[in-house]
Amino acid sequence: MTAQTQTIREPHRLYLREEQIPTRWYNLRADMPVKPEPMRLPTGAVASKADLSPVFADALIDHELDDATPYFDIPEPVLEMYRVYRPSPLCRAYNLERALNTPAKIFYKFEGNNTSGSHKLNSAVAQAYYAKAQGLTNVTTETGAGQWGTALAEACAHYGLDLDVFMVKCSYEQKPFRRNIMETFHASVTPSPSDTTEVGRRLLAQDPDSSGSLGTAISEAVERALHVPENRGRYQLGSVLNQVVLHQSIIGLESYEAMRELGEYPDIVIGCAGGGSNLGGLIAPFMRDKLTGARPDTRFIAVEPESCPSLTRGRFAYDFADTGQTCPLCKMYTLGNGFIPNPDHAGGLRYHGMSPIISQLKHDGYLEAVAVSQTDVFEAGERFATLETILPAPESSHAILQAIREAERCRETGEAKTILFGLTGTGYFDMVAYDKFNRGEMEDHRPTDEELEQGFATIPRIEGIQ
Amino acid sequence: MTAQTQTIREPHRLYLREEQIPTRWYNLRADMPVKPEPMRLPTGAVASKADLSPVFADALIDHELDDATPYFDIPEPVLEMYRVYRPSPLCRAYNLERALNTPAKIFYKFEGNNTSGSHKLNSAVAQAYYAKAQGLTNVTTETGAGQWGTALAEACAHYGLDLDVFMVKCSYEQKPFRRNIMETFHASVTPSPSDTTEVGRRLLAQDPDSSGSLGTAISEAVERALHVPENRGRYQLGSVLNQVVLHQSIIGLESYEAMRELGEYPDIVIGCAGGGSNLGGLIAPFMRDKLTGARPDTRFIAVEPESCPSLTRGRFAYDFADTGQTCPLCKMYTLGNGFIPNPDHAGGLRYHGMSPIISQLKHDGYLEAVAVSQTDVFEAGERFATLETILPAPESSHAILQAIREAERCRETGEAKTILFGLTGTGYFDMVAYDKFNRGEMEDHRPTDEELEQGFATIPRIEGIQ
Repeated sequence: MTAQTQTIREPHRLYLREEQIPTRWYNLRADMPVKPEPMRLPTGAVASKADLSPVFADALIDHELDDATPYFDIPEPVLEMYRVYRPSPLCRAYNLERALNTPAKIFYKFEGNNTSGSHKLNSAVAQAYYAKAQGLTNVTTETGAGQWGTALAEACAHYGLDLDVFMVKCSYEQKPFRRNIMETFHASVTPSPSDTTEVGRRLLAQDPDSSGSLGTAISEAVERALHVPENRGRYQLGSVLNQVVLHQSIIGLESYEAMRELGEYPDIVIGCAGGGSNLGGLIAPFMRDKLTGARPDTRFIAVEPESCPSLTRGRFAYDFADTGQTCPLCKMYTLGNGFIPNPDHAGGLRYHGMSPIISQLKHDGYLEAVAVSQTDVFEAGERFATLETILPAPESSHAILQAIREAERCRETGEAKTILFGLTGTGYFDMVAYDKFNRGEMEDHRPTDEELEQGFATIPRIEGIQ
Repeated sequence: MTAQTQTIREPHRLYLREEQIPTRWYNLRADMPVKPEPMRLPTGAVASKADLSPVFADALIDHELDDATPYFDIPEPVLEMYRVYRPSPLCRAYNLERALNTPAKIFYKFEGNNTSGSHKLNSAVAQAYYAKAQGLTNVTTETGAGQWGTALAEACAHYGLDLDVFMVKCSYEQKPFRRNIMETFHASVTPSPSDTTEVGRRLLAQDPDSSGSLGTAISEAVERALHVPENRGRYQLGSVLNQVVLHQSIIGLESYEAMRELGEYPDIVIGCAGGGSNLGGLIAPFMRDKLTGARPDTRFIAVEPESCPSLTRGRFAYDFADTGQTCPLCKMYTLGNGFIPNPDHAGGLRYHGMSPIISQLKHDGYLEAVAVSQTDVFEAGERFATLETILPAPESSHAILQAIREAERCRETGEAKTILFGLTGTGYFDMVAYDKFNRGEMEDHRPTDEELEQGFATIPRIEGIQ
């Protein structure tokens, strides 16, 4: 292969062959020198499988709690669905490189080539499969920008599961087509907070005009799952959880193999970070090499929005996963479960916390984080679209922006670094935001220190823990 | 390769390698026993290069008029753009086959993996390149459902050309996001008919409430191109023309090569038909085999909407390419340049005429045509989306529906036929129509014989010709 790449230029888009799709997910926790802290109940006790089984499918709890097993086999029916839309391509951004006049090589892993339009389908297929295999009938979830809800709707339609989606109200109103596509896959979609759950009614009583948050929608979805008769309902989440990062390792494993075929290895790996699912999946095998000392110098950069800066301005603490404070707590960088980003914030990446795996890696110095403004993000996204023929989701454009900045730095220093970033999805459902940007009406929002303090005040104190 | 396919199952999605992208377009006219009739002026004279050069870029006129040269080299800069988003995958619809319980093998060529979301980019890149290479500065065009406008906006942004798009008014109003995405690529978008052109004002005077038609938008775009100072503007069209079918042959050539690698050959090739660009491109090399006698038994099926049935209910006659009757005339199946499909018709495929190449093949018995209802089309599209993880454009769903019907026929007869259809694009901008369908509010529209007669009355009589 090396001989070939010496004579033939690297392709714009490298697709692995179908039989190269990984057959196991990689569990990065197994190689972390300091493991992420365990999920805890409000009492402070570590959450057990029995505690979690009313909420999550059994196999998924095993994925969630196991921080020692390095690989999990991907079930054949899940692989069969992966084969319909995977492998996703590893792309070389030649046009972007030329436009930047940079000596850097810029690669991106493009996860937008499926109906859901994003990487979210990788975990949705797995979660829906395990629910079906357990004999469950109903699934509930939340969605913000709508990518996760679309992905899970697609997966549930495939496996014949009923799906209730609680969609953050401001997204529900800004993105009617996101609702339509979920309904096309037979999902039921409710704007959150809603009056259909106890927790929704409680939160509406406190703030009748609430534009909603992921944390609130999670509370509602969990409550709904617990009320499905005969214990046949479960809740599923599209990011943050260890299980999701595990499933998303398929992104990194394919990227790793594709770069190996090209004889390349990234100096810098960049991903957008909301709950951390894409970032955790993309970096997994490269971070393994860093943690084991095989490739100690690789840099990892999480890019988050200024308007929801959990990694760059949050606290590393145990916090509830949801605003209704009905879920277990995770040790993570958090803005406080009561933090609600400015509703003007476009796209996803609006969760108050961050994957415990990503949080731990950041805390231990293995991963950097930067926060960027949304006008810069959209400018980078439009530039990329014109050059590379893919209209990126705003989330993905966070990574694009940082990749551009790193490549420009290479132009200054003359270093021919190899950059890899995750292009998580397409922006077809984000045209309202693109339009706003094009009309010059998009604003940037950076929470004040006071606003952050209000969020931090919602982080619980737990005796003996924090 | 045969040895391999005997041991390894055919992949779900076969991507050719980048170096397998065809370097020449194939000109099906060269192998047609009866050539398509030439374009003519309203006087009846055959249109010459000199006649066309104020309207089309010079190299594109060569593509348009040459019915003898079998191959045209693809310029390197066009190939370079093709490499950014091509080859497109040839997919095997395993899930659909299983759901239909059919012995048939169903393949589809998926052209939706680029920002424009459809095959239209294949010709847009070529047309924009030739305009740029000729030193032109401005391009004008029309768009109906918006796929072509998006593709040309993307191509013009890439080559640095100014683009004016006239968008059929009912689409402009139903699909604001289509406008937004074109504007993201710096195009200027005007609803048609408009008061910005003479022909638009004339048509508005006749019918102030006109919902527009492709034929009208074409008239406006041509007029605009002719008014660009210093002869630096040209008009470009996304379908119908011979040049477009030539560029779109890339679809068929890649499909042909991919099927060859799999050791397969289609018994039936199916494409949706509006202006005929995708269909003409997809079938090109397979039709060559039929015309030369190498594969005489292959069936070719054009699928059109009942609401705009040019091939199944139109007349084979010379007609104006545009409603304003300012363009040359083509010999084609036509409903009359004054025919306007019911505005309730969702998606594209709303042109009054049909590619002269496709028309001639139909007329000479090499190609079948069927017309289908839009509720059947959306039902097939949703079924496909659930099974194959791609949300199809309504246009593409016409081909899906027919593929399903042919596969069901195989289930009845027990014949294990190989079916290939063109999946031209994605339906992300068609959620209003999907929603209408899901709410049970979509209606079917079949023009009455009287309505057709009104359209036919606008077909001109030309002395000595017809």
